[in-house]
Amino acid sequence: MPDVEIIAVGSEMLTSQRIDTNSLFLTDQLNSLGVEVRRKLIVGDDRALLTDAVRAALSHAEIVILTGGLGPTEDDVTRDATASALGRQLIFSQQICDEIEARFRLRRRPMAEINKRQAYLVEGAEALPNANGTAPGQWMEHEGHVVILLPGPPGELKPLFDKECMPRLARRLPAQVIRTRFYRVSGLGESDLDAMIAPVYSRYTNPVTTILAAPGDIQIHLRARASTAEEAEKLLAEVGDPVAEILGPRLYSRNGHPLEQVLGDLLRERGSTVALAESCTGGMVGERITAAAGSSDYFPGGFLVYSDRMKTELLGIDPALISQHTAVSGEVAVAMAEGARQRTGASFAISTTGEAGPESASGAPVGTVFVGFSSAGHPPEAQRYSFPGGRERVRGFATQAALEYLRRKILGIDI
Amino acid sequence: MPDVEIIAVGSEMLTSQRIDTNSLFLTDQLNSLGVEVRRKLIVGDDRALLTDAVRAALSHAEIVILTGGLGPTEDDVTRDATASALGRQLIFSQQICDEIEARFRLRRRPMAEINKRQAYLVEGAEALPNANGTAPGQWMEHEGHVVILLPGPPGELKPLFDKECMPRLARRLPAQVIRTRFYRVSGLGESDLDAMIAPVYSRYTNPVTTILAAPGDIQIHLRARASTAEEAEKLLAEVGDPVAEILGPRLYSRNGHPLEQVLGDLLRERGSTVALAESCTGGMVGERITAAAGSSDYFPGGFLVYSDRMKTELLGIDPALISQHTAVSGEVAVAMAEGARQRTGASFAISTTGEAGPESASGAPVGTVFVGFSSAGHPPEAQRYSFPGGRERVRGFATQAALEYLRRKILGIDI
Repeated sequence: MPDVEIIAVGSEMLTSQRIDTNSLFLTDQLNSLGVEVRRKLIVGDDRALLTDAVRAALSHAEIVILTGGLGPTEDDVTRDATASALGRQLIFSQQICDEIEARFRLRRRPMAEINKRQAYLVEGAEALPNANGTAPGQWMEHEGHVVILLPGPPGELKPLFDKECMPRLARRLPAQVIRTRFYRVSGLGESDLDAMIAPVYSRYTNPVTTILAAPGDIQIHLRARASTAEEAEKLLAEVGDPVAEILGPRLYSRNGHPLEQVLGDLLRERGSTVALAESCTGGMVGERITAAAGSSDYFPGGFLVYSDRMKTELLGIDPALISQHTAVSGEVAVAMAEGARQRTGASFAISTTGEAGPESASGAPVGTVFVGFSSAGHPPEAQRYSFPGGRERVRGFATQAALEYLRRKILGIDI
Repeated sequence: MPDVEIIAVGSEMLTSQRIDTNSLFLTDQLNSLGVEVRRKLIVGDDRALLTDAVRAALSHAEIVILTGGLGPTEDDVTRDATASALGRQLIFSQQICDEIEARFRLRRRPMAEINKRQAYLVEGAEALPNANGTAPGQWMEHEGHVVILLPGPPGELKPLFDKECMPRLARRLPAQVIRTRFYRVSGLGESDLDAMIAPVYSRYTNPVTTILAAPGDIQIHLRARASTAEEAEKLLAEVGDPVAEILGPRLYSRNGHPLEQVLGDLLRERGSTVALAESCTGGMVGERITAAAGSSDYFPGGFLVYSDRMKTELLGIDPALISQHTAVSGEVAVAMAEGARQRTGASFAISTTGEAGPESASGAPVGTVFVGFSSAGHPPEAQRYSFPGGRERVRGFATQAALEYLRRKILGIDI
């Protein structure tokens, strides 16, 4: 199988504040085709240095991917440097220029003269349409090598790579079938999960098992390679089925869908709706729920009740309840969920209240979070959590916990 | 000033799960000495590939730092590859071997035979004691270059670098100072911004100017080097002051603080509060505002009014207004902001309503967003925007626009 070198271009990635993350996405996609990343290089916006780097990469790897440096400004040198390294010219494309101009027109803004720089292609390169930005990607072949130029912003690079590059690469590669399973698990720590499932997966090198952890959310990727789809599926089942068995109801997704989408499907199937009352998460649960397209089917809305006064005035919580138990308590979490459900008429409501830090207002330790749940015709409930980390991590954990709590209540899974 | 190339060694850093973070620490330390990182390379545990990489690095940079690959196993190839690249031998050091053995004795464990591999020094290298692990670092000079080998674990690398390498590097370097400015700008596209300020910054190579764009938010980094702090500040002012002048009120931060923090400071200074009514952003504005620690000083809460019914029931918007103008209209945005302010008693309220896609419910094109603003004693207002991209990008732009709209209204800046 061919090897890849990824070159990330941009002086900002040579500072201590920024890091190249595009290569992580690219690595995942390339690995799924059976292609390995051999080297990753990060260089600044320096024409001569980048030209050298492209030349050297061609001597190490069959596929060279450059990310970034396709913007309209003077310091966007990727097009120039690649052309120099390959001994080619840059050719102006009137068609690309027209497309860029059309993008600006659509937004009712004039195209700056400088954007014409983005309409140059390396001689012989194919333009890869960029649905989310002005700079197209470029695909070229050179003495048996493939050189790909991709825009730097992840929101542009990812869809472009998936749509334009993956099929082109797949056609070039030896016939091999790769099949994957993509499990997601909530409410379990990474090392606990690993202790449970390592006895199964560690006996296999094919499928390859990869575990990725985010706050409250763990992804398990299984990737099997074989010469037929049937054989690859059989390998996947050998590892995937016992792993799923062990995880039981903690496994919330078998196809990689995020929790908010799984939840949305559950609510839509049942014709149910959910409302929110968020305190410490300040809108993050709402953001997650509404990240799914079509969430208006099951999400009417909710309340951001950050202050105690808002909890009282918007949700009708008795101030005495707050003074007795503090705002960070199961009692208040329950009252928030009840208030939100009654005021919206939703089938369910969930609430969050906690101490995200850096300081505690209620006296409860930083990391303490209560999630409340209310459902018509059932007594409301709350669950207490204690999350590690700083403000951002605690809020991320709390958001995930709230969504998972709702999923388990809807499915009748014991918490 | 000399330049540095950092080579991170380890196949695990070529997967999608691991990232090289040692180089961020090293970059900070090196920058403080006035040394720039010119390239960063990540290579696997491959002797031949690493040997090539060290040779190439010596042609690019005066200082070459290798991190990782100093362990005791077969795939720890950094010592070997460096010796090969420099045309030197590896020499066994009985003294280092004794020190490693003593470490093991201290932990009452026998030293494995394999650990003797860590007692080899590149011929002519100086061992750098590692207080936190078995593998010492190594410092060598070669034809005017410095080559440094560091252990990979951050807990070993960091103290070793600070104690052993920083003083050695400082002695070799001409005294130099680095000073930075970090501007942030909202409500301007990258190419428009560049067209405005490139005439100023492009005439200077010192300070170096770097421009980074996120949806609705642009960062401008200026970095000046000089032999004194005064001179570096003077260079920064030469470019930074006219750039700030050109950007005027669009420049919302001169110290890198994000918009939500700048806004929080403005509100706190004035003793003002802000409430929210979010539709298309579904909680994202609340999340941003409450991401700042201490946001309870100025954020009581708000409403997630995703459905039309919630807009009517929670905010008291006349259903006729919605049927007349659709929910995605300036009229409804204004009514949402008014309703949120009146129901919370906040000084200000902002609202969002729009079509984030993938489909439009109101008939307005996907990307259309209205931000509403309400303030006691002033007529409410709304602003229409048209954002590019998919659901996630449109929501990101809308969130940033809402915060920026509020900032400008508070400061009395004409939109």
